[in-house]
Amino acid sequence: MDEKYDFTISTIGKPNIPSPVTLSKNRGDYIANYVTDNQRVLYTIEVDSSKLDCHFSPQECMERAGPRERIYFDPSKVNAGVVTCGGLCPGLNDVIRAVIMCLWYRYGVRRICGIRFGYRGFLPQFKIPPIDLNPSIAEDIHQKGGTILGSSRGYGDLVSEIVDSIERMNLNILFAIGGDGTQRGALKIAEEAERRGFKLAVVGVPKTIDNDFSFVQRSFGFDTAVTEAEKVVSAAHVEAHDAPNGISIVKVMGRESGFIAAHTTLAINDVNFVLIPEVPFDLDGENGLLNHLQKRLELRNHAVILVAEGAGTDLMPDSGKVDASGNRKLGDIGLFLKGKIAGYFKKKDMPVTIRYIDPSYIIRSSPANSSDSLYCARLGNNAVHAAMAGKTKMIISMVNNHFVYIPTRISVSTRNHVDPESSLWRDVIEATGQPALMKNPR
Amino acid sequence: MDEKYDFTISTIGKPNIPSPVTLSKNRGDYIANYVTDNQRVLYTIEVDSSKLDCHFSPQECMERAGPRERIYFDPSKVNAGVVTCGGLCPGLNDVIRAVIMCLWYRYGVRRICGIRFGYRGFLPQFKIPPIDLNPSIAEDIHQKGGTILGSSRGYGDLVSEIVDSIERMNLNILFAIGGDGTQRGALKIAEEAERRGFKLAVVGVPKTIDNDFSFVQRSFGFDTAVTEAEKVVSAAHVEAHDAPNGISIVKVMGRESGFIAAHTTLAINDVNFVLIPEVPFDLDGENGLLNHLQKRLELRNHAVILVAEGAGTDLMPDSGKVDASGNRKLGDIGLFLKGKIAGYFKKKDMPVTIRYIDPSYIIRSSPANSSDSLYCARLGNNAVHAAMAGKTKMIISMVNNHFVYIPTRISVSTRNHVDPESSLWRDVIEATGQPALMKNPR
Amino acid sequence: MDEKYDFTISTIGKPNIPSPVTLSKNRGDYIANYVTDNQRVLYTIEVDSSKLDCHFSPQECMERAGPRERIYFDPSKVNAGVVTCGGLCPGLNDVIRAVIMCLWYRYGVRRICGIRFGYRGFLPQFKIPPIDLNPSIAEDIHQKGGTILGSSRGYGDLVSEIVDSIERMNLNILFAIGGDGTQRGALKIAEEAERRGFKLAVVGVPKTIDNDFSFVQRSFGFDTAVTEAEKVVSAAHVEAHDAPNGISIVKVMGRESGFIAAHTTLAINDVNFVLIPEVPFDLDGENGLLNHLQKRLELRNHAVILVAEGAGTDLMPDSGKVDASGNRKLGDIGLFLKGKIAGYFKKKDMPVTIRYIDPSYIIRSSPANSSDSLYCARLGNNAVHAAMAGKTKMIISMVNNHFVYIPTRISVSTRNHVDPESSLWRDVIEATGQPALMKNPR
Amino acid sequence: MDEKYDFTISTIGKPNIPSPVTLSKNRGDYIANYVTDNQRVLYTIEVDSSKLDCHFSPQECMERAGPRERIYFDPSKVNAGVVTCGGLCPGLNDVIRAVIMCLWYRYGVRRICGIRFGYRGFLPQFKIPPIDLNPSIAEDIHQKGGTILGSSRGYGDLVSEIVDSIERMNLNILFAIGGDGTQRGALKIAEEAERRGFKLAVVGVPKTIDNDFSFVQRSFGFDTAVTEAEKVVSAAHVEAHDAPNGISIVKVMGRESGFIAAHTTLAINDVNFVLIPEVPFDLDGENGLLNHLQKRLELRNHAVILVAEGAGTDLMPDSGKVDASGNRKLGDIGLFLKGKIAGYFKKKDMPVTIRYIDPSYIIRSSPANSSDSLYCARLGNNAVHAAMAGKTKMIISMVNNHFVYIPTRISVSTRNHVDPESSLWRDVIEATGQPALMKNPR
Repeated sequence: MDEKYDFTISTIGKPNIPSPVTLSKNRGDYIANYVTDNQRVLYTIEVDSSKLDCHFSPQECMERAGPRERIYFDPSKVNAGVVTCGGLCPGLNDVIRAVIMCLWYRYGVRRICGIRFGYRGFLPQFKIPPIDLNPSIAEDIHQKGGTILGSSRGYGDLVSEIVDSIERMNLNILFAIGGDGTQRGALKIAEEAERRGFKLAVVGVPKTIDNDFSFVQRSFGFDTAVTEAEKVVSAAHVEAHDAPNGISIVKVMGRESGFIAAHTTLAINDVNFVLIPEVPFDLDGENGLLNHLQKRLELRNHAVILVAEGAGTDLMPDSGKVDASGNRKLGDIGLFLKGKIAGYFKKKDMPVTIRYIDPSYIIRSSPANSSDSLYCARLGNNAVHAAMAGKTKMIISMVNNHFVYIPTRISVSTRNHVDPESSLWRDVIEATGQPALMKNPR
Repeated sequence: MDEKYDFTISTIGKPNIPSPVTLSKNRGDYIANYVTDNQRVLYTIEVDSSKLDCHFSPQECMERAGPRERIYFDPSKVNAGVVTCGGLCPGLNDVIRAVIMCLWYRYGVRRICGIRFGYRGFLPQFKIPPIDLNPSIAEDIHQKGGTILGSSRGYGDLVSEIVDSIERMNLNILFAIGGDGTQRGALKIAEEAERRGFKLAVVGVPKTIDNDFSFVQRSFGFDTAVTEAEKVVSAAHVEAHDAPNGISIVKVMGRESGFIAAHTTLAINDVNFVLIPEVPFDLDGENGLLNHLQKRLELRNHAVILVAEGAGTDLMPDSGKVDASGNRKLGDIGLFLKGKIAGYFKKKDMPVTIRYIDPSYIIRSSPANSSDSLYCARLGNNAVHAAMAGKTKMIISMVNNHFVYIPTRISVSTRNHVDPESSLWRDVIEATGQPALMKNPR
Repeated sequence: MDEKYDFTISTIGKPNIPSPVTLSKNRGDYIANYVTDNQRVLYTIEVDSSKLDCHFSPQECMERAGPRERIYFDPSKVNAGVVTCGGLCPGLNDVIRAVIMCLWYRYGVRRICGIRFGYRGFLPQFKIPPIDLNPSIAEDIHQKGGTILGSSRGYGDLVSEIVDSIERMNLNILFAIGGDGTQRGALKIAEEAERRGFKLAVVGVPKTIDNDFSFVQRSFGFDTAVTEAEKVVSAAHVEAHDAPNGISIVKVMGRESGFIAAHTTLAINDVNFVLIPEVPFDLDGENGLLNHLQKRLELRNHAVILVAEGAGTDLMPDSGKVDASGNRKLGDIGLFLKGKIAGYFKKKDMPVTIRYIDPSYIIRSSPANSSDSLYCARLGNNAVHAAMAGKTKMIISMVNNHFVYIPTRISVSTRNHVDPESSLWRDVIEATGQPALMKNPR
Repeated sequence: MDEKYDFTISTIGKPNIPSPVTLSKNRGDYIANYVTDNQRVLYTIEVDSSKLDCHFSPQECMERAGPRERIYFDPSKVNAGVVTCGGLCPGLNDVIRAVIMCLWYRYGVRRICGIRFGYRGFLPQFKIPPIDLNPSIAEDIHQKGGTILGSSRGYGDLVSEIVDSIERMNLNILFAIGGDGTQRGALKIAEEAERRGFKLAVVGVPKTIDNDFSFVQRSFGFDTAVTEAEKVVSAAHVEAHDAPNGISIVKVMGRESGFIAAHTTLAINDVNFVLIPEVPFDLDGENGLLNHLQKRLELRNHAVILVAEGAGTDLMPDSGKVDASGNRKLGDIGLFLKGKIAGYFKKKDMPVTIRYIDPSYIIRSSPANSSDSLYCARLGNNAVHAAMAGKTKMIISMVNNHFVYIPTRISVSTRNHVDPESSLWRDVIEATGQPALMKNPR
């Protein structure tokens, strides 16, 4: 069995106010029931049939998301803020829309403001006023890509200035939509507010187009990203197929994890080599990529390589730079591979046609597809239910196919990766026909 | 806690042959590991934190899907059949493709045949010869809707003739892709073969575009169906919005369950009334659909009604007929509503413009979207791993987000429904703004 | 050579005001030039090389569309109305948008109003106030199907009431976007205004999704309609192909002309029989549709029939009814065929599976595709240039690939049809493989 | 009036064989009529109403395309070759398909071969055998992007080797699908065959995704390219809009002409600056791009720049290189602009977020949309009708909305450009709001 986690959710106070969301407490009346804090979902569900004496403590179970019968905030006193941080991701507007609609129509909250361009919008020096949010602004935004609030990276560590600004704006709820950097920032903001003694519920909606947020079964926008990536790989396949010894290289998102690359490969079946950060590979030698690529060309005359942006970093010189979110700036593995491949075949005197496609902006700015739209709508609703109940320092998530609340502290403590020994990666390898591991024996 | 189930999987014999799928038994070598029969997944994972002394017996846990280290069949002796039954559904070709590819490339099986037009293809009187299947036939079929094998309803109860035919064809594995009628037939076929003493592994891939197969978290094709239905509702919204007192009625699949209607509503946010089999409603009276529809028109001048084909059957006269699959033939609820609504507003002397759209053929014949393609690929692979290991009378499924094997007997014993008191339906109701229940007090 | 036409355009007065659209009169300065009334386009351009002594009078040539150097209306005095009539058609919002943007930004017009729900919006008894139009309302409307103004059929003959209303609203320009009924109404409105002595410029934008407006090379929305119809036929093909003796019937728009059916057939290549109003056919007999259909099934086991709604009206009993636009109500040829085909094969004891798909609402409510968006943008601009120059009783059109102005009187005098002896129909017939004519000798 | 052209079409001999395409010579029998060589289409149709005494000589008129009553080749003796050259373009497979289908089904030709990877496939040193083409290979190829024959640049000047190869292969008809380099090569091949005295009909299908082939109203694939480019600009708009001072630069095809850029701008309305080869611009100075860009950011905080690859070449240092087709290698104007813009705003101390998107491979490898599919089908048919009638040294084209035959010699003598003083460019400028000319006075 895996490590044990403490999934206890923090609150800013006892919820004493009857919820204006009129549900039921009975089965059989066709009215949805309130969710209680006691309703939990098991986290560790992969077991061995020979060792089944599981005992679970309450802390090991995750709290189910949903509307509580009693809430902490008086809706007429709520002043909620929404902020979107980091890179664009399909579904941001869907989440914003759901948060606004649920606050407004379910709880009767009338003061909702949108912080612009991420945490930067909190900082007085940038002079970016927030915008008032309401259902008429939000009505059709889910049909558009991007975020109506704008987004930017960084500033999550200017906690004191941000909390000053939150105090000036008199917010008592903050919805932070963003990646693990953003959620770490949100946690610090909540802690700083706590320290100052003012009641601020901070609820995160985890965002990573790469699908590598821990304790999140599926991150919103990921499904759309795979759909869009599939179209690009389809184009790359045509380009490779129709040129003499055509090689197409497609780079997709995935700084630390290869989920987009893996899922796209399985969805389209036209990829011959897939390279991800989790699985090291050699370029040279008998069992290196270049030799296998040559064999593929000799056999089929064309090849498609799908590479996650964080793959093969050990092969490239370190740029030594970091971006505004504090992430290490990666060299461009796509260009690097293109150069290496060109050099290799030049030396072999074997003319090839190499195309390199980097579609990231096209993918991440897409509107959410149906599946993500629906998912975002439910994430947003459940984030609101949590905040109104006074829950804080937590994120909304889906685990084992149930909507649950997870402490932010745990969720940012680690990161999801493609397990190279999982059935997912096994199926991917089989779909490409590439060797299980392209490493030479030492 | 819910009812207890016995998830023990049947086999046709002890798997003694080393698998040609060369995986690993060690962690850390970047090679996927075999799955053992002892690896299980918990089924009941919603718990109450005050009652956590769960004890699970092995039978209550589901077997994890995947390649076993030892298999039952000698691949060179395998003669596998594939059959697709019932209505079309996005992803059929993806499943067929995955089954062929996995048999051929992973296990080295060379004799695979496709039974044409469902169980009908087994019956000598129809004289429909099966077709040989191989990777070159299957290569691009996942890009097309429908099934390359053709499909039809019924004949699942002609067990004896079918097993005669299977014996003549000398099949030892049968993959049955179809709904619960088909899986009931597959179970009877497996039992009849057992009775006759010949070794036939029957593995089902559950298919229902309605998403109402029990013990199946998500049925393949459903996600695509929602995506396509969303486009149609979007058109219906334009039609309603642009006509004076415009009313659009869209009928979607869902004979006994409203999942497509519910998910589509949440994905698009343009539906004002959603009607599903699980939630009864009145037409007349203060709290009936017609009165609420009138209020909506008075307020906003247009309305979109999304109705599952099985909704409101209690309101219509019974046709008394059944279809070839033995399902009761439903009256057309869309036409019925159109008539009732037209009559109501004529009596009120309030001119309305009603459009009725029934897109079912367009939806069900779509090619699978990325998400379904990937899902079908993995279902097909895992179905093959089960059959090669000699497992039988089972279906491949996903539950609590894990691929598992489920005994057919259990899976067809009941059917999934939208729970009117669930968070899903709660979110749907909120997205439409319709009353929680349109029934008058008696 | 064809009939001669008088293409002289009417004006409501001499254009004396310098245009605020600052263009050039010189070549070579990279600034577009004004278009003069003398710039013409030849209409009859198909000639016989043995008879080339063409002489053209000015009236036989069409006036080129575009901004004039001098205009009739003082932009600050303009009060323009826009109305959309009849059935929905892709591109309506694009035209509305272009008209608003060109009036506002090119000419500085600030009073633009949208008449709602067609000519009905002019009639006081319906109490539908017009809406003020401006760039901020119009900015994104081209991304949506339908018309933001709403539409309805009829009322075009209530000329006196409409002109009363126009006088009350003090409009001096009216843009009428609609079919030939609408344009006939617009002509009568212009004539009535003339009679009353008030200066009203009426400019029509011809709309017919069927592409059968005379003197219009291509009607807006038609290209999108074919694109959408192609998707439906693709679904119909899958349905037919995957059922035993599957027959799919798809009905598309085309009351009097088969352009959508013909173009869709050529675009997709999956249609086996295409039936249009211009080409009569028999059902029975050696050379009738039913016999050819049977042969096709015997040969290939499936068939797709694409039928324009106005095809085969001579085969069905006349309904005797007319719709609000005064069009004869047609029986449903799709249902009629379905019945006849079912009866025929029942009698032959040959089981078939028939699917009937009627996608019209889905097609006509689509947003315009790129090609139609661009086309509508240019139609709208040129309609504004005409109106500002005081031209009236005319429509904007494209003929021989040039934007031109055509007198409304001529444009509604006849209707375009698919010429059964044209190269278009020849290519269609060849794409289907159906006989050139399915009529039995008498 | 414009320059006069001699549109006389060459033939390789008198057509004496009755065509197997059974058409009619009568009107009114519902059977399409043969087209005669005398049927012509006027080329110069823009006239001045004050100077209408046009006289046309037969040479000034274009021959109408279509099946002739008598053909030159005995179909049983025909051995036809098809070759696709240069960059990929949507619709290539549609043209190939139409050529095969028309040869096979209309004329009964049974020997058709596909030359692989452009003219390279003719050269013995590359050892690329041609492939046999027939309807079963071609059936579904129009649903895929690219060309089943493969393509490559260059080799068009190795006329002697190519004609040697054509003699060895015993071809008597060659269909050359490619750009103006390819057509110049085709012309030389036809002339060399003529010199050698063997009867070879060479018919070109002009291909340029840039839409700049002279005497071709619309080049196939262009409409699809605009549709795809629109999607990319839409993504670019989201990226620009959602970042603080966001600037997106999208580069599209157009080495010498800006048609894709211009049409895309009009279709989507989200472009703020469009830069094309035909219109020079300054970067610096009061009226330069950079200053206007700054003003736009100050006003609206974001901007989208759409640039054709051949724009602004005078601003960049000449690379001095040429590609395999002999085209001068351009520097990357997108990267160049990105650098200049970054430098400018850095100097101004105004932080901006710049995204550069270069989607060319994604665009050009798309399958043809409906409109292009249909167009390609008709181009292919008419190319076959020409070749069977013994016409040679010509291309198939559409001019003034009619399918016509044009001598290759004329068609490659010049190239189409966006006329900066045309109504097209006028409408584009108005759609962006950019100045008519961004050049400073000298």
